[in-house]
Amino acid sequence: MSAAPKANPPIRTLLGPGPSPVSPRVLAALSLPVVGHLDPKFLEIMDQSMAMLRELFQTKNRLALPMSGTGSAGMETCFVNLLEPGDTVLIGVNGVFGTRMVDVAQRCGAQADTVDAEWGSALDAQNFKTALAQKKYKLVAVVHAETSTGVLQPLDDIAKLVHENGALLLVDAVTSLGGAPVRVDELGIDACYSGTQKCLGCPPGLSPVTFNERAVEVIRKRKTKVQSWYLDLSMIEKYWGSERVYHHTAPISMNYALHEALRAVLEEGLEASWQRHKQTHDVFVRAMRKLEIEPAVAEAIRAPMINAIKIPEGADDATVRTRLYDDFNIEIGAGLGPLKGKIWRVGLMGHGARVENVETLSQALKQLIQ
Amino acid sequence: MSAAPKANPPIRTLLGPGPSPVSPRVLAALSLPVVGHLDPKFLEIMDQSMAMLRELFQTKNRLALPMSGTGSAGMETCFVNLLEPGDTVLIGVNGVFGTRMVDVAQRCGAQADTVDAEWGSALDAQNFKTALAQKKYKLVAVVHAETSTGVLQPLDDIAKLVHENGALLLVDAVTSLGGAPVRVDELGIDACYSGTQKCLGCPPGLSPVTFNERAVEVIRKRKTKVQSWYLDLSMIEKYWGSERVYHHTAPISMNYALHEALRAVLEEGLEASWQRHKQTHDVFVRAMRKLEIEPAVAEAIRAPMINAIKIPEGADDATVRTRLYDDFNIEIGAGLGPLKGKIWRVGLMGHGARVENVETLSQALKQLIQ
Repeated sequence: MSAAPKANPPIRTLLGPGPSPVSPRVLAALSLPVVGHLDPKFLEIMDQSMAMLRELFQTKNRLALPMSGTGSAGMETCFVNLLEPGDTVLIGVNGVFGTRMVDVAQRCGAQADTVDAEWGSALDAQNFKTALAQKKYKLVAVVHAETSTGVLQPLDDIAKLVHENGALLLVDAVTSLGGAPVRVDELGIDACYSGTQKCLGCPPGLSPVTFNERAVEVIRKRKTKVQSWYLDLSMIEKYWGSERVYHHTAPISMNYALHEALRAVLEEGLEASWQRHKQTHDVFVRAMRKLEIEPAVAEAIRAPMINAIKIPEGADDATVRTRLYDDFNIEIGAGLGPLKGKIWRVGLMGHGARVENVETLSQALKQLIQ
Repeated sequence: MSAAPKANPPIRTLLGPGPSPVSPRVLAALSLPVVGHLDPKFLEIMDQSMAMLRELFQTKNRLALPMSGTGSAGMETCFVNLLEPGDTVLIGVNGVFGTRMVDVAQRCGAQADTVDAEWGSALDAQNFKTALAQKKYKLVAVVHAETSTGVLQPLDDIAKLVHENGALLLVDAVTSLGGAPVRVDELGIDACYSGTQKCLGCPPGLSPVTFNERAVEVIRKRKTKVQSWYLDLSMIEKYWGSERVYHHTAPISMNYALHEALRAVLEEGLEASWQRHKQTHDVFVRAMRKLEIEPAVAEAIRAPMINAIKIPEGADDATVRTRLYDDFNIEIGAGLGPLKGKIWRVGLMGHGARVENVETLSQALKQLIQ
């Protein structure tokens, strides 16, 4: 066999659930000269990325670093490190990622109970109160921005309840980090994970995580080894910490991209980034209403970076999305699970959270559905 | 806090145990426009990469794909998918990566026994014969090129014994793939994993794996779920296969780089690539002898791509390696475990397996040790 033809991917306007558009400065960082994972110059870059991640997570946690896998690896990192066989965990389920959490927790041998809500609604803190009163839980896990539904989960009441009951709080901030406040220290979030390919404007491939000292202590006191060698934070922290003990070969180029993406967020300012996501979202909602397309999520709980909209009557889901690819080079996301065929998901994330992208999509949709 | 300074990594001559030097064409592929993980154009690239991986693994296996993590994630993929609690596994241990395999297998709840050899020696097939006669094993695992010692393990006799005894054979080809023959089908290797950052000349971040139908059947017949959600091949093969079921967001940019790196290997020709690694190795051994530096591994089992050499008397290990960084921008590897302070490890891998790199290193070493 001969070599395949050279890859020639099209330039898409990425308005799906992620990956989001990557800015030229971040794309350029990917091509910086590769150095070794113990090169003194790379160690400096690692330290800087940890410091910048702490800013984004709004935390003073020592442990804040990118795992060498995508957001789902970050999810698994949190569960495998915090749970041991037989442990109890309470998980909020109102979309794909809460559902995935249950699967991951059960694979750790944990007893997983759920607090459920309809897909497209928020989880009710009252239901957590009831569940926490009935049983002692080691860990409670919720998704902040449910990418599959477009819901931004209010966290304050749940966080308070979890800590009153002596449990650890784990939050999925894959889609929210950088696009909305993720107040790790203020809310006392004990463990939190994110992804690079959403509001950070970096390609997919790494998963930033942060653990506070309470969570680190739980890892230290484990009776069993973490079931994943690759995701074992007790070893990984010795590479990212001052010991610099080799664990696995860090993905150098992806770490360059993350470093540059974090720089871009902090140069703009974290609050300015949140505001840009919110403003773009507001413009989007108005633009869709002009096309008689309604948001699928109640106003108070709409995630600004991932917008679920109702597929208008008469429009064929798959046809519209295919024509957006083929005729306009635009990607948007389909509905998943019970929302398949009912909603579209429009990501306005990271470098993609710009009014010009709303206009591009509006023009295209206008031609396709009217 | 303000943003960190822009990353400005030096241009190193990467002659350590990996990452290896990345060619300009692969670096450029990293910066191609990012598209979605379900974009029709990305799916084409995935199919092409699978076909090219089959060439490199010398296999007709349907399942040949890059896992979204580094080589150690590939190792874990093989063990977590093939092993269930209580299963028996026999592992060859003569370096860091055999040792790591034992740890990974035990975290799967398996009973791991070992066949040991001194670090720097090869494993003796006779010892596998003895062990296999004493106990029934589900899986036997060996490292092909032990990056920590520079030994290229002969596989033919071991493969024959493993299959005579009805076990599965798992081979670590992280460092050998692309630089020496990895005869998956000819030897009946049931599962094999590699890394991108060695002889493929790609940055670290992905781990190509291949499983034959016998190994896939073992996964299908599992009584328990694979303990890692992220590495569960029964789900991942549905994304890489024709179903295209979303599992996790593929690392798009790294997949571009791998695609281009595989293209480069096949354009050169797989056999030509092996020969180039062998020829560069031969030149290296002669060049070192001129400096009175001896190979640390017996000639018959020397891995051509990762060269262990004895640190010459009078040379200070750390000082020489630091001065190679600081004065010459060259990276070589230190010894690990019992070989720390006794050997250096010189990688001549992928794009780095070139005579000019041997000359660059020889000139530098000459100045530092004589």
